[in-house]
Amino acid sequence: MAEQWQDVLDHAVAVAQKAGKVVREALQSDRKVSTKSSSIDLVTQTDQKVEQLIIQSVKETFPAHRFIGEESVAAGEPCDLTDEPTWIIDPIDGTTNFFPLAFLLIMGVVYSCLEDKMFVARRGKGAFCNGKQLRVSDQKDIHCSIVATEFGSNRDGGAVEKIFSSLRKVVCLPVHGVRGAGSAAINLCLVASGCVEAYYEIGVHVWDVAAGALMVTEAGGVLMDVEGGALDMMSRRILAANNRHIAEQIVGQIQAFTPQRDDAPPQQQ
Amino acid sequence: MAEQWQDVLDHAVAVAQKAGKVVREALQSDRKVSTKSSSIDLVTQTDQKVEQLIIQSVKETFPAHRFIGEESVAAGEPCDLTDEPTWIIDPIDGTTNFFPLAFLLIMGVVYSCLEDKMFVARRGKGAFCNGKQLRVSDQKDIHCSIVATEFGSNRDGGAVEKIFSSLRKVVCLPVHGVRGAGSAAINLCLVASGCVEAYYEIGVHVWDVAAGALMVTEAGGVLMDVEGGALDMMSRRILAANNRHIAEQIVGQIQAFTPQRDDAPPQQQ
Repeated sequence: MAEQWQDVLDHAVAVAQKAGKVVREALQSDRKVSTKSSSIDLVTQTDQKVEQLIIQSVKETFPAHRFIGEESVAAGEPCDLTDEPTWIIDPIDGTTNFFPLAFLLIMGVVYSCLEDKMFVARRGKGAFCNGKQLRVSDQKDIHCSIVATEFGSNRDGGAVEKIFSSLRKVVCLPVHGVRGAGSAAINLCLVASGCVEAYYEIGVHVWDVAAGALMVTEAGGVLMDVEGGALDMMSRRILAANNRHIAEQIVGQIQAFTPQRDDAPPQQQ
Repeated sequence: MAEQWQDVLDHAVAVAQKAGKVVREALQSDRKVSTKSSSIDLVTQTDQKVEQLIIQSVKETFPAHRFIGEESVAAGEPCDLTDEPTWIIDPIDGTTNFFPLAFLLIMGVVYSCLEDKMFVARRGKGAFCNGKQLRVSDQKDIHCSIVATEFGSNRDGGAVEKIFSSLRKVVCLPVHGVRGAGSAAINLCLVASGCVEAYYEIGVHVWDVAAGALMVTEAGGVLMDVEGGALDMMSRRILAANNRHIAEQIVGQIQAFTPQRDDAPPQQQ
């Protein structure tokens, strides 16, 4: 059984590398051709192409496996976590960071293709970047801590109000600094690598965070809801930190809100 | 004369590489030894050591050159830009990014030592990263633009209020996204590389931005004050963008304030 999971992980790494190549080429041609045509469209095209590439490649080797992908869900497919082996895929997280992400419940792969950094985690086996084991920071003082977050794509007044007032309270704890890598997956990898102490965000999707979340726990960190309860992968809220003490001090500053869940039934128009 | 400047630039690159080695080693030993002792102190020690290393190395080769460095200014040396060749040095910008920076009015070097990215610019000769010429983004639509900024280290209520209300207005333009690499120099290199469209900050120092600013103009971008006038290197305010159109739309959102200038006479206690 162990070997079987290793095969799956090897496959995930190989397909991430292949997808990374497609993304790098698309980015180059985007830069080369021109940006007069909407580059957002080009990203969406590449997103769909890469998700199909990953799904087809996996299906050939593991025909019983299931998928949750950003593009498939956008196309109306269900977003359910069952007991079946399920890959959670975000081909290009953040649309401006260009890297694919694959996850199979008990393993996670984040490939930052422009930096050629391959992050891999397997439950109980640790997290690694290009083969080097990752370990969260051992900082215990919130005032010496760096916190990553993002403003997300929600521009609704009420959400923006809460996002800014929360961040302001975090900044004025005070923390040592704030970062925003532009991608939930990379922010989680920064926590796992010990480059930042914590990351939180409201509005993320399960495909943005699934792989990175495993990276954090396998590197010795903690995950929770932004209000301090257990993390709910479908709730679109996440807080990751190097330890519980740092996490709880951030929880105290967050004015939470509740986006529509990833597993909510499709809305009637 | 041209060869002479090339010699100086070659020297700057060599010394940046040497300094990068010191910084990487300090970071490794910091992680290895423990973080029970304040890692802030260790960073300050490395900061001073690297600044001394750079100054001594330059003085041996170019005895007439002058210096403005973060650590020297902190130690009471004057911060004046004269007609003499002057190196503006920030050995480790941001304290958490670990890279040295050197600048000689007409050339700039930013070395991101952990990524091993050497950014080099020379006035009228272009900007390069590891030998590859840099070019700003040609995005003209603010809604498709990514803007980098930082919250800085100022936790004074009035400044924080203005920093947050400005950023909120920028986010709600809306822009496509916000980034914060944690270092003014790297944010400017991101503008020069076309990875983000703009960067602005109030509270930076001349040694944080001098080299990166040249990187931006040599990559085809623009620099201005956050209120839209000409950039004043000593004013501690900067706005860099891929073009004037993007810059001016950001200017319209910024609630500016005026920190004490870098070239202000030392305050009486």
